[in-house]
Amino acid sequence: MYSGAQVSLYPMSGDFAAIILDAIRALDPYRDRLRIETDDISTLMIGPPDVLFSAMRDLFVFAARSGAHCVLSAAVSRGCPGGPDSDPICGIDKRLGQDTPLAVRIDEALAAVSATEDTGQPAAAQFALYVMGSDNHMDEIVGCIDFLKQSGTFDRAKNFVTKLRGDAGPVFATLQEALFRFGPAEGHVTLDITVSANSPTKA
Amino acid sequence: MYSGAQVSLYPMSGDFAAIILDAIRALDPYRDRLRIETDDISTLMIGPPDVLFSAMRDLFVFAARSGAHCVLSAAVSRGCPGGPDSDPICGIDKRLGQDTPLAVRIDEALAAVSATEDTGQPAAAQFALYVMGSDNHMDEIVGCIDFLKQSGTFDRAKNFVTKLRGDAGPVFATLQEALFRFGPAEGHVTLDITVSANSPTKA
Repeated sequence: MYSGAQVSLYPMSGDFAAIILDAIRALDPYRDRLRIETDDISTLMIGPPDVLFSAMRDLFVFAARSGAHCVLSAAVSRGCPGGPDSDPICGIDKRLGQDTPLAVRIDEALAAVSATEDTGQPAAAQFALYVMGSDNHMDEIVGCIDFLKQSGTFDRAKNFVTKLRGDAGPVFATLQEALFRFGPAEGHVTLDITVSANSPTKA
Repeated sequence: MYSGAQVSLYPMSGDFAAIILDAIRALDPYRDRLRIETDDISTLMIGPPDVLFSAMRDLFVFAARSGAHCVLSAAVSRGCPGGPDSDPICGIDKRLGQDTPLAVRIDEALAAVSATEDTGQPAAAQFALYVMGSDNHMDEIVGCIDFLKQSGTFDRAKNFVTKLRGDAGPVFATLQEALFRFGPAEGHVTLDITVSANSPTKA
Protein backbone atom coordinates (compact mmCIF):
# COMPACT_ATOMS: atom_id res chain seq x y z
CA MET A 1 0.00 0.00 0.00
CA TYR A 2 1.14 3.47 -0.93
CA SER A 3 1.55 5.77 2.08
CA GLY A 4 2.71 9.36 2.00
CA ALA A 5 1.99 13.05 2.37
CA GLN A 6 2.54 16.47 0.90
CA VAL A 7 3.66 18.46 3.96
CA SER A 8 4.03 22.23 4.42
CA LEU A 9 5.36 24.12 7.44
CA TYR A 10 4.32 27.74 8.03
CA PRO A 11 6.18 29.73 10.72
CA MET A 12 4.45 33.10 11.11
CA SER A 13 7.73 34.97 11.51
CA GLY A 14 10.08 37.13 9.48
CA ASP A 15 12.64 34.40 10.23
CA PHE A 16 10.46 31.72 8.65
CA ALA A 17 13.18 30.49 6.28
CA ALA A 18 15.69 30.00 9.12
CA ILE A 19 13.07 28.29 11.31
CA ILE A 20 12.18 25.89 8.48
CA LEU A 21 15.82 25.13 7.63
CA ASP A 22 16.52 24.46 11.30
CA ALA A 23 13.43 22.29 11.77
CA ILE A 24 14.21 20.24 8.68
CA ARG A 25 17.16 18.75 10.57
CA ALA A 26 14.50 16.93 12.61
CA LEU A 27 13.97 14.77 9.53
CA ASP A 28 17.56 13.47 9.53
CA PRO A 29 16.85 10.34 11.63
CA TYR A 30 14.12 9.35 9.16
CA ARG A 31 15.78 10.07 5.82
CA ASP A 32 16.84 6.47 5.16
CA ARG A 33 13.24 5.31 5.60
CA LEU A 34 11.44 8.12 3.71
CA ARG A 35 11.49 9.36 0.16
CA ILE A 36 11.65 13.17 0.50
CA GLU A 37 11.23 15.75 -2.30
CA THR A 38 10.75 19.50 -1.78
CA ASP A 39 9.49 22.26 -4.06
CA ASP A 40 8.18 25.80 -3.45
CA ILE A 41 4.84 24.61 -2.01
CA SER A 42 5.38 21.40 -0.07
CA THR A 43 7.60 18.48 0.81
CA LEU A 44 6.64 15.02 -0.36
CA MET A 45 7.28 12.30 2.21
CA ILE A 46 6.64 8.67 1.31
CA GLY A 47 7.17 5.82 3.72
CA PRO A 48 5.58 3.58 6.36
CA PRO A 49 2.89 5.29 8.48
CA ASP A 50 4.77 5.21 11.80
CA VAL A 51 7.87 6.79 10.24
CA LEU A 52 5.78 9.31 8.30
CA PHE A 53 3.85 10.52 11.36
CA SER A 54 6.91 10.56 13.62
CA ALA A 55 8.76 12.65 11.04
CA MET A 56 5.87 15.13 10.71
CA ARG A 57 5.57 15.38 14.51
CA ASP A 58 9.28 16.06 15.00
CA LEU A 59 9.32 18.63 12.18
CA PHE A 60 6.39 20.43 13.81
CA VAL A 61 7.78 20.30 17.35
CA PHE A 62 11.24 21.55 16.30
CA ALA A 63 9.67 24.51 14.49
CA ALA A 64 7.26 25.27 17.34
CA ARG A 65 10.15 25.40 19.84
CA SER A 66 11.27 28.58 18.05
CA GLY A 67 8.37 30.21 19.89
CA ALA A 68 6.85 31.47 16.64
CA HIS A 69 3.25 30.71 15.77
CA CYS A 70 3.77 27.65 13.51
CA VAL A 71 1.35 25.57 11.46
CA LEU A 72 1.98 22.24 9.78
CA SER A 73 -0.48 21.43 7.00
CA ALA A 74 -0.49 18.11 5.14
CA ALA A 75 -2.44 16.03 2.68
CA VAL A 76 -1.81 12.46 3.87
CA SER A 77 -2.80 9.49 1.72
CA ARG A 78 -2.82 5.72 1.84
CA GLY A 79 -3.80 3.38 -0.97
CA CYS A 80 -3.90 6.09 -3.62
CA PRO A 81 -4.55 4.42 -7.00
CA GLY A 82 -1.64 4.77 -9.38
CA GLY A 83 0.98 4.78 -6.66
CA PRO A 84 3.93 2.42 -6.72
CA ASP A 85 2.32 -0.06 -4.34
CA SER A 86 5.16 -2.49 -4.73
CA ASP A 87 7.74 -0.04 -3.43
CA PRO A 88 9.03 -1.59 -0.19
CA ILE A 89 9.45 1.86 1.45
CA CYS A 90 5.67 2.35 1.37
CA GLY A 91 4.71 -0.85 3.13
CA ILE A 92 1.95 -0.79 5.73
CA ASP A 93 2.91 -2.61 8.88
CA LYS A 94 0.40 -5.47 9.13
CA ARG A 95 0.68 -5.21 12.91
CA LEU A 96 -1.60 -2.18 12.55
CA GLY A 97 -4.17 -4.95 12.39
CA GLN A 98 -6.79 -3.75 9.94
CA ASP A 99 -7.94 -7.35 9.61
CA THR A 100 -9.01 -7.59 13.26
CA PRO A 101 -12.57 -6.75 14.46
CA LEU A 102 -13.50 -3.09 14.79
CA ALA A 103 -13.96 -3.18 18.58
CA VAL A 104 -10.47 -4.63 18.96
CA ARG A 105 -9.01 -1.95 16.71
CA ILE A 106 -10.65 0.82 18.74
CA ASP A 107 -8.95 -0.59 21.85
CA GLU A 108 -5.64 -0.93 20.00
CA ALA A 109 -5.87 2.65 18.73
CA LEU A 110 -6.61 3.95 22.23
CA ALA A 111 -3.71 1.94 23.64
CA ALA A 112 -1.38 3.30 20.94
CA VAL A 113 -2.30 6.92 21.73
CA SER A 114 -2.11 6.29 25.46
CA ALA A 115 1.38 4.79 25.11
CA THR A 116 2.67 7.79 23.15
CA GLU A 117 5.18 9.95 24.98
CA ASP A 118 4.47 13.64 25.42
CA THR A 119 6.74 16.06 23.58
CA GLY A 120 6.13 19.00 25.92
CA GLN A 121 4.70 20.97 22.99
CA PRO A 122 0.99 21.85 23.21
CA ALA A 123 -0.88 21.73 19.90
CA ALA A 124 -4.29 22.38 18.41
CA ALA A 125 -5.23 20.43 15.31
CA GLN A 126 -8.05 19.75 12.93
CA PHE A 127 -8.53 17.20 10.20
CA ALA A 128 -10.93 15.78 7.64
CA LEU A 129 -10.86 12.05 6.88
CA TYR A 130 -11.99 11.02 3.39
CA VAL A 131 -12.79 7.44 2.40
CA MET A 132 -12.99 6.90 -1.36
CA GLY A 133 -14.42 3.93 -3.15
CA SER A 134 -17.47 1.83 -3.69
CA ASP A 135 -18.70 1.59 -0.12
CA ASN A 136 -19.28 4.22 2.53
CA HIS A 137 -17.83 2.01 5.25
CA MET A 138 -20.06 3.73 7.76
CA ASP A 139 -19.27 1.16 10.45
CA GLU A 140 -15.60 2.05 10.13
CA ILE A 141 -16.25 5.78 10.30
CA VAL A 142 -18.55 5.41 13.30
CA GLY A 143 -15.87 3.26 14.95
CA CYS A 144 -13.23 5.87 14.22
CA ILE A 145 -15.38 8.61 15.77
CA ASP A 146 -15.88 6.38 18.81
CA PHE A 147 -12.08 6.10 19.08
CA LEU A 148 -11.57 9.85 18.63
CA LYS A 149 -14.02 10.79 21.38
CA GLN A 150 -12.18 8.53 23.85
CA SER A 151 -8.68 9.45 22.64
CA GLY A 152 -8.04 12.22 25.16
CA THR A 153 -7.22 14.62 22.31
CA PHE A 154 -10.79 15.20 21.05
CA ASP A 155 -11.85 18.85 21.22
CA ARG A 156 -15.01 19.18 19.12
CA ALA A 157 -16.68 18.58 15.77
CA LYS A 158 -16.74 21.53 13.37
CA ASN A 159 -18.23 21.85 9.90
CA PHE A 160 -16.21 19.59 7.57
CA VAL A 161 -13.51 18.79 10.17
CA THR A 162 -12.81 17.41 13.65
CA LYS A 163 -10.74 19.43 16.08
CA LEU A 164 -8.15 17.98 18.46
CA ARG A 165 -6.13 19.53 21.27
CA GLY A 166 -3.32 18.27 23.47
CA ASP A 167 0.36 17.51 23.51
CA ALA A 168 1.78 17.15 19.99
CA GLY A 169 2.79 13.53 20.73
CA PRO A 170 -0.72 12.14 21.34
CA VAL A 171 -2.22 14.54 18.76
CA PHE A 172 -0.07 13.15 15.91
CA ALA A 173 -0.61 9.61 17.26
CA THR A 174 -4.38 10.15 17.12
CA LEU A 175 -4.14 11.33 13.50
CA GLN A 176 -2.01 8.30 12.59
CA GLU A 177 -4.44 5.86 14.22
CA ALA A 178 -7.45 7.52 12.52
CA LEU A 179 -5.89 7.13 9.07
CA PHE A 180 -4.39 3.65 9.33
CA ARG A 181 -6.43 1.72 11.90
CA PHE A 182 -9.84 2.37 10.32
CA GLY A 183 -11.40 2.24 6.87
CA PRO A 184 -10.94 -0.39 4.18
CA ALA A 185 -7.54 -2.07 4.55
CA GLU A 186 -6.86 -1.84 0.82
CA GLY A 187 -8.86 1.31 0.18
CA HIS A 188 -7.91 4.86 -0.72
CA VAL A 189 -8.17 6.95 2.45
CA THR A 190 -6.86 10.49 2.89
CA LEU A 191 -6.45 12.92 5.74
CA ASP A 192 -6.31 16.71 5.40
CA ILE A 193 -4.53 17.88 8.57
CA THR A 194 -3.69 21.23 10.14
CA VAL A 195 -1.63 21.36 13.37
CA SER A 196 -0.98 24.68 15.12
CA ALA A 197 1.28 25.87 17.95
CA ASN A 198 1.78 29.19 19.72
CA SER A 199 -1.32 30.85 18.26
CA PRO A 200 -1.99 34.26 19.83
CA THR A 201 -5.72 33.58 19.30
CA LYS A 202 -7.45 31.93 22.21
CA ALA A 203 -9.47 28.88 21.21
CA MET B 1 -26.41 21.41 -1.74
CA TYR B 2 -24.12 22.36 1.11
CA SER B 3 -21.09 24.40 0.01
CA GLY B 4 -18.39 25.77 2.26
CA ALA B 5 -14.81 25.73 3.45
CA GLN B 6 -12.56 25.88 6.47
CA VAL B 7 -10.04 28.54 5.42
CA SER B 8 -6.69 29.51 6.98
CA LEU B 9 -4.34 32.31 6.00
CA TYR B 10 -0.64 32.11 6.88
CA PRO B 11 1.51 35.24 6.39
CA MET B 12 5.16 34.30 7.03
CA SER B 13 5.89 37.56 8.84
CA GLY B 14 6.27 38.87 12.35
CA ASP B 15 3.35 41.16 11.40
CA PHE B 16 1.12 38.20 10.59
CA ALA B 17 -1.70 39.30 12.89
CA ALA B 18 -1.86 42.79 11.34
CA ILE B 19 -1.70 41.36 7.80
CA ILE B 20 -4.56 38.96 8.57
CA LEU B 21 -6.71 41.64 10.24
CA ASP B 22 -6.14 43.93 7.27
CA ALA B 23 -6.89 41.22 4.70
CA ILE B 24 -10.08 40.18 6.46
CA ARG B 25 -11.59 43.49 5.36
CA ALA B 26 -11.57 41.95 1.87
CA LEU B 27 -14.44 39.77 3.08
CA ASP B 28 -16.72 42.75 3.81
CA PRO B 29 -18.45 42.77 0.37
CA TYR B 30 -19.35 39.10 0.83
CA ARG B 31 -20.51 39.04 4.45
CA ASP B 32 -24.22 39.24 3.64
CA ARG B 33 -23.93 36.16 1.41
CA LEU B 34 -21.61 34.04 3.57
CA ARG B 35 -21.87 32.52 7.01
CA ILE B 36 -18.49 33.25 8.63
CA GLU B 37 -17.15 31.83 11.92
CA THR B 38 -13.54 32.10 13.13
CA ASP B 39 -11.56 30.22 15.78
CA ASP B 40 -7.84 29.78 16.50
CA ILE B 41 -7.27 27.42 13.54
CA SER B 42 -9.51 28.44 10.67
CA THR B 43 -12.44 30.46 9.41
CA LEU B 44 -15.59 28.68 8.32
CA MET B 45 -17.21 30.17 5.21
CA ILE B 46 -20.51 28.78 3.95
CA GLY B 47 -22.25 30.07 0.86
CA PRO B 48 -22.70 29.70 -2.89
CA PRO B 49 -19.57 28.56 -4.76
CA ASP B 50 -18.98 31.77 -6.74
CA VAL B 51 -19.19 33.89 -3.59
CA LEU B 52 -17.05 31.43 -1.62
CA PHE B 53 -14.23 31.35 -4.19
CA SER B 54 -14.32 35.12 -4.83
CA ALA B 55 -14.06 35.72 -1.08
CA MET B 56 -11.11 33.32 -0.71
CA ARG B 57 -9.37 34.89 -3.72
CA ASP B 58 -9.78 38.44 -2.39
CA LEU B 59 -8.61 37.43 1.09
CA PHE B 60 -5.50 35.84 -0.44
CA VAL B 61 -4.74 38.74 -2.81
CA PHE B 62 -5.15 41.38 -0.09
CA ALA B 63 -2.74 39.50 2.19
CA ALA B 64 -0.24 38.85 -0.61
CA ARG B 65 -0.10 42.55 -1.45
CA SER B 66 1.62 43.05 1.91
CA GLY B 67 4.67 41.60 0.15
CA ALA B 68 5.04 38.85 2.76
CA HIS B 69 5.19 35.20 1.76
CA CYS B 70 1.52 34.23 2.27
CA VAL B 71 -0.28 30.92 2.00
CA LEU B 72 -4.02 30.28 1.98
CA SER B 73 -5.00 26.73 2.88
CA ALA B 74 -8.57 25.46 2.75
CA ALA B 75 -10.70 22.35 2.98
CA VAL B 76 -13.55 23.05 0.56
CA SER B 77 -16.63 20.84 0.48
CA ARG B 78 -19.85 20.46 -1.44
CA GLY B 79 -22.63 18.01 -0.73
CA CYS B 80 -21.27 16.96 2.65
CA PRO B 81 -23.75 14.61 4.29
CA GLY B 82 -25.27 16.09 7.40
CA GLY B 83 -25.08 19.66 6.20
CA PRO B 84 -28.13 21.90 6.19
CA ASP B 85 -28.89 21.38 2.49
CA SER B 86 -32.01 23.39 2.70
CA ASP B 87 -30.23 26.54 3.84
CA PRO B 88 -30.73 29.06 1.02
CA ILE B 89 -27.27 30.57 1.57
CA CYS B 90 -25.67 27.27 0.48
CA GLY B 91 -27.50 26.93 -2.80
CA ILE B 92 -25.61 25.79 -5.88
CA ASP B 93 -26.31 27.95 -8.89
CA LYS B 94 -27.92 25.57 -11.39
CA ARG B 95 -26.37 27.62 -14.18
CA LEU B 96 -23.14 25.81 -13.28
CA GLY B 97 -24.80 23.18 -15.44
CA GLN B 98 -23.82 19.88 -13.91
CA ASP B 99 -26.71 18.29 -15.79
CA THR B 100 -25.22 19.06 -19.22
CA PRO B 101 -22.91 16.63 -21.10
CA LEU B 102 -19.29 16.37 -19.96
CA ALA B 103 -17.81 17.77 -23.20
CA VAL B 104 -20.04 20.83 -22.88
CA ARG B 105 -19.01 21.33 -19.26
CA ILE B 106 -15.31 21.17 -20.16
CA ASP B 107 -15.91 23.98 -22.66
CA GLU B 108 -17.95 25.95 -20.13
CA ALA B 109 -15.23 25.55 -17.47
CA LEU B 110 -12.55 26.71 -19.91
CA ALA B 111 -14.69 29.69 -20.91
CA ALA B 112 -15.27 30.58 -17.24
CA VAL B 113 -11.52 30.56 -16.46
CA SER B 114 -10.73 32.43 -19.66
CA ALA B 115 -13.28 35.13 -18.80
CA THR B 116 -11.81 35.65 -15.32
CA GLU B 117 -10.05 38.97 -14.80
CA ASP B 118 -6.44 38.96 -13.65
CA THR B 119 -5.75 40.33 -10.18
CA GLY B 120 -2.12 41.27 -10.85
CA GLN B 121 -1.06 38.83 -8.11
CA PRO B 122 0.99 35.79 -9.26
CA ALA B 123 0.23 32.58 -7.38
CA ALA B 124 1.32 28.96 -7.16
CA ALA B 125 -1.24 26.44 -5.98
CA GLN B 126 -1.83 22.78 -5.47
CA PHE B 127 -4.91 20.77 -4.73
CA ALA B 128 -6.35 17.31 -4.25
CA LEU B 129 -9.91 16.58 -5.41
CA TYR B 130 -11.75 13.81 -3.55
CA VAL B 131 -14.98 12.25 -4.80
CA MET B 132 -16.80 10.22 -2.17
CA GLY B 133 -19.66 7.83 -2.72
CA SER B 134 -20.74 4.69 -4.43
CA ASP B 135 -19.19 5.25 -7.84
CA ASN B 136 -15.71 6.28 -8.90
CA HIS B 137 -17.06 8.63 -11.56
CA MET B 138 -13.91 8.06 -13.58
CA ASP B 139 -15.38 9.75 -16.66
CA GLU B 140 -15.91 12.90 -14.60
CA ILE B 141 -12.39 12.80 -13.18
CA VAL B 142 -10.85 12.22 -16.61
CA GLY B 143 -12.95 15.10 -17.94
CA CYS B 144 -11.79 17.33 -15.10
CA ILE B 145 -8.15 16.50 -15.84
CA ASP B 146 -8.77 17.29 -19.51
CA PHE B 147 -10.13 20.70 -18.42
CA LEU B 148 -7.19 21.34 -16.08
CA LYS B 149 -4.57 20.63 -18.73
CA GLN B 150 -6.18 23.15 -21.07
CA SER B 151 -6.95 25.72 -18.37
CA GLY B 152 -3.80 27.80 -18.80
CA THR B 153 -3.04 27.40 -15.08
CA PHE B 154 -1.88 23.76 -15.13
CA ASP B 155 1.69 23.34 -13.91
CA ARG B 156 2.23 19.62 -13.26
CA ALA B 157 0.96 16.51 -11.53
CA LYS B 158 2.67 15.63 -8.24
CA ASN B 159 2.12 12.72 -5.87
CA PHE B 160 -1.38 13.10 -4.35
CA VAL B 161 -1.95 16.60 -5.80
CA THR B 162 -2.09 18.72 -8.96
CA LYS B 163 -0.06 21.91 -9.15
CA LEU B 164 -1.27 25.15 -10.75
CA ARG B 165 0.50 28.41 -11.49
CA GLY B 166 -0.66 31.79 -12.80
CA ASP B 167 -2.49 34.92 -11.80
CA ALA B 168 -4.57 34.41 -8.65
CA GLY B 169 -7.77 35.24 -10.61
CA PRO B 170 -7.64 32.33 -13.06
CA VAL B 171 -6.03 30.05 -10.42
CA PHE B 172 -9.00 30.40 -8.03
CA ALA B 173 -11.40 30.19 -11.00
CA THR B 174 -9.77 26.89 -12.02
CA LEU B 175 -10.19 25.50 -8.50
CA GLN B 176 -13.84 26.56 -8.43
CA GLU B 177 -14.58 24.96 -11.79
CA ALA B 178 -12.82 21.73 -10.79
CA LEU B 179 -14.95 21.38 -7.66
CA PHE B 180 -18.35 22.43 -8.97
CA ARG B 181 -18.45 21.67 -12.70
CA PHE B 182 -17.37 18.03 -12.41
CA GLY B 183 -18.28 15.02 -10.32
CA PRO B 184 -21.72 13.84 -9.27
CA ALA B 185 -24.14 16.79 -9.09
CA GLU B 186 -25.54 15.60 -5.79
CA GLY B 187 -22.38 13.91 -4.51
CA HIS B 188 -19.96 14.72 -1.73
CA VAL B 189 -16.87 16.24 -3.34
CA THR B 190 -14.03 17.97 -1.50
CA LEU B 191 -10.98 19.97 -2.44
CA ASP B 192 -7.84 20.35 -0.31
CA ILE B 193 -6.20 23.55 -1.59
CA THR B 194 -2.96 25.42 -0.92
CA VAL B 195 -2.30 28.76 -2.65
CA SER B 196 1.04 30.53 -2.21
CA ALA B 197 2.41 34.00 -3.05
CA ASN B 198 5.81 35.65 -2.69
CA SER B 199 7.70 32.44 -1.88
CA PRO B 200 11.46 32.98 -1.77
CA THR B 201 11.89 29.41 -3.05
CA LYS B 202 12.07 29.10 -6.79
CA ALA B 203 9.70 26.51 -8.22
